[in-house]
Amino acid sequence: MDFILELDRLKQIQRQTYITGDQRKENDAEHSWHLAVMSIILSDYAEVPLDLTKVLTMVLIHDVVEIDAGDTYAYDEEGNATKRQREEAAANRLFGILPRPQAESMRAVWEEFEKKETPEAKFANTMDRVQPILLNDATNGDAWKEHKVTAAQILNRNRSTWEGAPQVWKYAETLIHKHIQNGDIQEDRR
Amino acid sequence: MDFILELDRLKQIQRQTYITGDQRKENDAEHSWHLAVMSIILSDYAEVPLDLTKVLTMVLIHDVVEIDAGDTYAYDEEGNATKRQREEAAANRLFGILPRPQAESMRAVWEEFEKKETPEAKFANTMDRVQPILLNDATNGDAWKEHKVTAAQILNRNRSTWEGAPQVWKYAETLIHKHIQNGDIQEDRR
Repeated sequence: MDFILELDRLKQIQRQTYITGDQRKENDAEHSWHLAVMSIILSDYAEVPLDLTKVLTMVLIHDVVEIDAGDTYAYDEEGNATKRQREEAAANRLFGILPRPQAESMRAVWEEFEKKETPEAKFANTMDRVQPILLNDATNGDAWKEHKVTAAQILNRNRSTWEGAPQVWKYAETLIHKHIQNGDIQEDRR
Repeated sequence: MDFILELDRLKQIQRQTYITGDQRKENDAEHSWHLAVMSIILSDYAEVPLDLTKVLTMVLIHDVVEIDAGDTYAYDEEGNATKRQREEAAANRLFGILPRPQAESMRAVWEEFEKKETPEAKFANTMDRVQPILLNDATNGDAWKEHKVTAAQILNRNRSTWEGAPQVWKYAETLIHKHIQNGDIQEDRR
């Protein structure tokens, strides 16, 4: 119960993506819920059958470390340099609230997500990358424009994202290219 | 993809429960995420082994009909008289956005949750009832006081809630009785 109440704070961790309607940014709890629904709807697009319960557990808890570590924007180089260390400490504290066997299994699922090696982790990561692209597309690319995001940044960050669900990533790519063409995503940093 | 984007609107459906920190009320997407995490953590408290993927699907989508029908407060008698009809129409429209087989399976899961007959539906409904009690307890019973909720209303509404997870409900009952004693929940309507 302590863990469940502590996790309530995830509702106050703001991300950089706008929700549709465009009047405010999304928080981590909403984002995690959205990934979970996407995972149910799109699981057949993985290249192998998935353990859907594990995928759902991953996407539901993948961001809880941000309760302590905060949301690090994808294209914040400085923040990303210290991200792993801050999130490790957060994982120790937060999962440590649970009774031992649960603490270990939840932490293991979080680590699996972070490593992106298993089909479940790859698929969950693809959902995590595609969802903000869908929202950015539906909100005039405002978050991309606000942060002056470049095509090279997005495509570099997502080199392996297709692996989790090739057809879903292909669709996301068409959205990216549309927003490169209309200038919402900058062609180049120069 | 249309369904996934349409569901983004659940982030704007406000409930009556305050999140911890007490500065604002929770929305349906955050609430659904919280129920899903609770379901993973507490699933062993069901009296029979559960199909956890089904439980998670239930709690993740149980409120999407409120995108059209709005949130009906538990103790709003007038609202509850028309709730079922409004939510049926919403289910038709929203799940109807999906391809046929998925539309049917998602709708069936929603109906199963509503009927509260299977172990999964009972457990999901217990989570749905316990979560606002946890939050109300953690936020000085503010939502209960705001709506002048009575002990009879809460106990009457939750006559069968124990069935999904008896020990979890027992814990929630201790919280309810604490707030009846301190006056946050009114002893009687008179």
